[in-house]
Amino acid sequence: MESWATFGGDLHLDLTAGRARGLGLREALEDALRTAVRDGRLSPGTRLPSSRVLSGDLGIARNTVAEAYAQLSAEGWLASRQGSGTVVAERGTPSATAAPAIRPRRPAVRYELLAGRPDVSRFPRSAWLAAARRALAVAPHEALSYSDPRGRIELRRALAEYLARVRGVRTDPERILICSGYTQGLGLLCGALRERGVRALAVEEYGLPPQQQVITAAGLATVPLPLDEGGARTDLLAGSDVGAAVLTPAHQFPTGVPLRAARRAAAVAWARESGGIVIEDDYDGEFRYDRQPVGAMQALDPERVVYAGTASKSLAPGLRLGWLVLPGDLVEPVVRQKELADGQSGAFEQLTLAELITSGGFDRHIRRSRLHYRRRRDQLVATLAERAPRVRVTGIAAGLHAVVRLPPDSLSEHELRSQAAWLGLSLQTLSECRTPAAGPAPDQAPALVIGYGTPPEHAFAPALEALCTLLRL
Amino acid sequence: MESWATFGGDLHLDLTAGRARGLGLREALEDALRTAVRDGRLSPGTRLPSSRVLSGDLGIARNTVAEAYAQLSAEGWLASRQGSGTVVAERGTPSATAAPAIRPRRPAVRYELLAGRPDVSRFPRSAWLAAARRALAVAPHEALSYSDPRGRIELRRALAEYLARVRGVRTDPERILICSGYTQGLGLLCGALRERGVRALAVEEYGLPPQQQVITAAGLATVPLPLDEGGARTDLLAGSDVGAAVLTPAHQFPTGVPLRAARRAAAVAWARESGGIVIEDDYDGEFRYDRQPVGAMQALDPERVVYAGTASKSLAPGLRLGWLVLPGDLVEPVVRQKELADGQSGAFEQLTLAELITSGGFDRHIRRSRLHYRRRRDQLVATLAERAPRVRVTGIAAGLHAVVRLPPDSLSEHELRSQAAWLGLSLQTLSECRTPAAGPAPDQAPALVIGYGTPPEHAFAPALEALCTLLRL
Repeated sequence: MESWATFGGDLHLDLTAGRARGLGLREALEDALRTAVRDGRLSPGTRLPSSRVLSGDLGIARNTVAEAYAQLSAEGWLASRQGSGTVVAERGTPSATAAPAIRPRRPAVRYELLAGRPDVSRFPRSAWLAAARRALAVAPHEALSYSDPRGRIELRRALAEYLARVRGVRTDPERILICSGYTQGLGLLCGALRERGVRALAVEEYGLPPQQQVITAAGLATVPLPLDEGGARTDLLAGSDVGAAVLTPAHQFPTGVPLRAARRAAAVAWARESGGIVIEDDYDGEFRYDRQPVGAMQALDPERVVYAGTASKSLAPGLRLGWLVLPGDLVEPVVRQKELADGQSGAFEQLTLAELITSGGFDRHIRRSRLHYRRRRDQLVATLAERAPRVRVTGIAAGLHAVVRLPPDSLSEHELRSQAAWLGLSLQTLSECRTPAAGPAPDQAPALVIGYGTPPEHAFAPALEALCTLLRL
Repeated sequence: MESWATFGGDLHLDLTAGRARGLGLREALEDALRTAVRDGRLSPGTRLPSSRVLSGDLGIARNTVAEAYAQLSAEGWLASRQGSGTVVAERGTPSATAAPAIRPRRPAVRYELLAGRPDVSRFPRSAWLAAARRALAVAPHEALSYSDPRGRIELRRALAEYLARVRGVRTDPERILICSGYTQGLGLLCGALRERGVRALAVEEYGLPPQQQVITAAGLATVPLPLDEGGARTDLLAGSDVGAAVLTPAHQFPTGVPLRAARRAAAVAWARESGGIVIEDDYDGEFRYDRQPVGAMQALDPERVVYAGTASKSLAPGLRLGWLVLPGDLVEPVVRQKELADGQSGAFEQLTLAELITSGGFDRHIRRSRLHYRRRRDQLVATLAERAPRVRVTGIAAGLHAVVRLPPDSLSEHELRSQAAWLGLSLQTLSECRTPAAGPAPDQAPALVIGYGTPPEHAFAPALEALCTLLRL
């Protein structure tokens, strides 16, 4: 198998030097690659390993590697050719003379159109602080000490009521575990499943890249489920030997299709027959714009489906608040994982969120956000229809992102990324969301995953403008 | 080897039933044991596995099992005999008649004297809320989104200054990682060390029980370091093949001795020569009452010593805020572990704590707390000298706990626990803090670990009164 190690035994990419200087992971990688090119350790024409391979070898996100490649291509250090990957550029590389090394000027990111992120400028700071004040005024002293690893009972009660009302989840507070975002929740589940003897998880063919790393780090293999217009092919689960399946039934990430009723039934039937578990990642279930959202799949069988929710889209990722609604026989093993991981999640935000939910402030924020994001989506669709009529916006009217598909004769996704960087646009391509286990994407027209939720209000129109410029290149 | 499984193949202790009814782990275990005795599955005279063995089999804290045993002994279901362990009681067991089962009345815990916990009734709620308001008013939007996995730069800057000033730690913000308490910090370190090929950690012969579980869950073995009046025998590290050593140099937990200068030097010399790592758990370094505390050992060699601190003792465990100060070459691997665990810690408390530190409010709280705990310790020592003159209080004047050693002809530790339960006192014995890998404790007089920090002010005098009653039994 191709690997960074076999690619060049003497090529050491030292990320720690950059990290120690305060650079982010991606910047440190860019810095290490620039240094290797500048020093001549990477000579012109050398083909670099794919972002998938390099990310695996360095143990960092594939996305990070792809972004570093795109950035260095934009700067002229590397060149990307459709079909032949990324190579060290033949010209444009500053020669290693005695002249002081000039750090190439990199275009600043002016507009983020990243999927899976809300517009944090809309976070209700005043309402949050008021709720924190009310919550801390009445919190018992024991709430500030070590307490139930499942989290504060105040929040578990509030969520049990909220999730039943808004998403049709069937539960009670005893089966809810509060965790530090979906990332931790998935990690705890993987740990508990592995202890039970599970060795592989089915995942959707396209998904959020960090999910894969969490599953792998827990020692589990992934088996990709193909997607079609009905959502994930859960009918194929019956023939597999996975112990669990991670699905995004309300709004597949990133393609945006909902899981069809028959596919939901097939997943639950598989879980019942095989003793398997379905993990329902309801990351943006609150945001559907054209109709009532389909209820949570968990209600079909609370003993076989874990419901995973998060405040990262509805409020802010920085809160690090997520929740798992667990089947009875998973409560104890997942609680044990939580105790080992960090004992319990922080009590203060839990008390505050409970107060925000029970006081009605959370519902008000969600309603306002839904209108806000709906307007943004409408604006995206209308603008692209007018300014870039050859692209198609796909996926249902929901969530915080849309998939924008380009005609086959457009720039490649790689080129789109490089050009986007020059325009100061940070965005993801569809291929970047492909699950590594699914292998290379079939030959398809380029597509972008556009997170219209991210920019603050004043930046949305110029970000759309930059996107139109990119799509007409 | 003795094990619960070999002890009785048909005896299934079902904790999930109790857990599903909302019971804590210990209550669920007590309930399962009571049911087994009541149903006749455990007959009178049957010897139960040791708390160490049962805790291993059930995958729960040994402490929890020991507490359940003590409780059931106090209730008359079990009997404990020095030297022969715990057996099912011969009499006093309600017979399994058709009469409605009467849940035995259990003495409520009225006073907690648990070590490692602060008096959370002293948490500065107003100052915290005011700091939260100021912090959230000026926080940039990006602070609410996904950001640096090491944590907020505001807090890392504040801590770099604070730790240098107060504990003599040598660092800069780039090497600090904010985590969810010491538990998570230790888990992340174990994960990173294991990736490096480390297979075993040296731990002090006595320590905080959950630490052991975190290390084991990370796949590492533990090697016990004996303790004497100079602290941990770090001079023995040179002969071992461990890759790291966890120490509590400022105030050994629980025995309360500081690590002697020669022992500090020996630990650092070992780390330098062997390429090993010292993890300095500075859990209560702010609280020394008789003199300036000894500075952090980390300053001897920041490239070989990880400094681990926490807000759990200085503010409140419910905050779940801890920090690691890392050697340069551990930053990247530990950051990767953090990304996989939960991406980053919650931003809101981090911003608030940063504001509390930089505004001087944190220092004021620490100074007041130091006086408060010092008074408590003095009161404990004076009261015991007068009311229970045969016991000795050992350990330096520091921290939130003291070890109380009884004369050899006293009740056994096990009996002390049972009797303490009847008095409504929750406390730990010294043997409960013994590291499992260290094997059974040498024959020694009974000793209690008394956490004088835990009770709120109004409960401290009556808690002391109950302790005196216990010590004179």
